[in-house]
Amino acid sequence: MTSPLLPQIGVDPPERGDAARNRRLLLDAAALLVAERGVDAVTMDAVACKAGVGKGTVFRRFGSRSGLMHALLDHTERELQQSFMFGPPPLGPGGDPIDRLIAFGHARIAIVEVQGEVQRAAENSLEFRFAAPARAVSVRHVVSLLRAAGVQGDHELLACSLLAPLEATLVLHELRDLGISVERLGAAWEDLIRRVTRC
Amino acid sequence: MTSPLLPQIGVDPPERGDAARNRRLLLDAAALLVAERGVDAVTMDAVACKAGVGKGTVFRRFGSRSGLMHALLDHTERELQQSFMFGPPPLGPGGDPIDRLIAFGHARIAIVEVQGEVQRAAENSLEFRFAAPARAVSVRHVVSLLRAAGVQGDHELLACSLLAPLEATLVLHELRDLGISVERLGAAWEDLIRRVTRC
Repeated sequence: MTSPLLPQIGVDPPERGDAARNRRLLLDAAALLVAERGVDAVTMDAVACKAGVGKGTVFRRFGSRSGLMHALLDHTERELQQSFMFGPPPLGPGGDPIDRLIAFGHARIAIVEVQGEVQRAAENSLEFRFAAPARAVSVRHVVSLLRAAGVQGDHELLACSLLAPLEATLVLHELRDLGISVERLGAAWEDLIRRVTRC
Repeated sequence: MTSPLLPQIGVDPPERGDAARNRRLLLDAAALLVAERGVDAVTMDAVACKAGVGKGTVFRRFGSRSGLMHALLDHTERELQQSFMFGPPPLGPGGDPIDRLIAFGHARIAIVEVQGEVQRAAENSLEFRFAAPARAVSVRHVVSLLRAAGVQGDHELLACSLLAPLEATLVLHELRDLGISVERLGAAWEDLIRRVTRC
C-alpha cells in the first residue's frame, strides 16, 4: 500500500492503430446501445449494425457477447482510471484530496446511470465482484486519498466501506426502485465523505 | 418514516407448540450444519439426520432445500430483529443510539461469520437482495437511530450507505479472501459510525 504508483488494469500489448480504432468504435457503439435501450439490446448483431460493420468483425474482436460485455466494462474502468490518475482536478491529481474523493464518487454514480446494468451483471458474478483488478485499483486510490486528507485509522477497511455504497447493484436500486435522483445520490456521497474525513 | 413501530418481518399465524418446536429444531440443525460444514452440506437428508427426524418431516415442513434456506435466513433475521427491537442494551432500546448502531453492525458481522454463505446466496438473487422485508426493517432501524443520535442530513441514503458494507457478500470477502479478523471488522465499523455521527 506504500507504492506511489497505482497498477494499471488490464495492460495489454499495444494494438495497431486501426485495430485500436476499430475496437473503440465497437465499444462506443455498444455503450450507446446500453444507454439508449438497455443491456438486453446489446447483441452482436445490434453492435455490428450500430457501428456499420459486419457481424463477423464483432465476433472476431470479442469472441462472444460475454466477451464484449467484459471489454465494455474494462473500457469504462480504464477511462475512469485515466481520469483519476492523469486527468484534470477535481478528479485528477493536484486537487484537494477530499474534493477528489467526492469527484470519484460522483464519477462512479454517473457511470452507473449509463452502464449500471452491465456492471450489475458483473457484480452478481462472484468471481468478478471483488476479484476484478479494477476494484483493487479503486481501493488503493481511495486509501491514498484518505491518507492524503490526513484521515487516521484503518484506511483499507474504510476504503472498502466507502466503496460499498457505490456498487452498481445498490446505486441502480436507489435510482430505479426508490426513484432517487442522481443529484441526491451525489449529495449524499459528498455528505458521507465530509463526515468521514473531518478531523 | 415517522411511525414509531417497525414492521415485523414475515409475521405468520402462530404455530401450535409442537409444530413451532419442531420447526425450531430443524432450523437449528440446519444452522449448525452451515456453521460446521458450509452451505453445500445443508441437504434435506443431512438436516433430517442431524435433527434425528425422518427426511419426510423436513420435506413436509419446508417443501424444498430452497424453502429451507429461505426459512433459515428469515429465522436469523427475526432473531436479530427481536434483539434490536426488544432485547437488552446495547443492541436493544434504552441504550445510547450510537452504541446501538455500533452493536447492530457487530451483530450483523457475527451473523455473517456463521451464516454468510446462505446470506450471500440470497444477496446474489436480485429479487431478494433489496426487496427483502428484512432489509426494509434494517434501513428503518438505522434511520431511527441516526435521528435519535441527532445526525442531520439525508437519513435514508446515509442508512443505505452504512448498511452496504455490512452485506454478507462483502463481509465474507473481507473475512475469507482478505483474511481480516472479525475483531478488526468490528473496530472498523465502530470507527465508521463514530465518524458519521459526530457533530
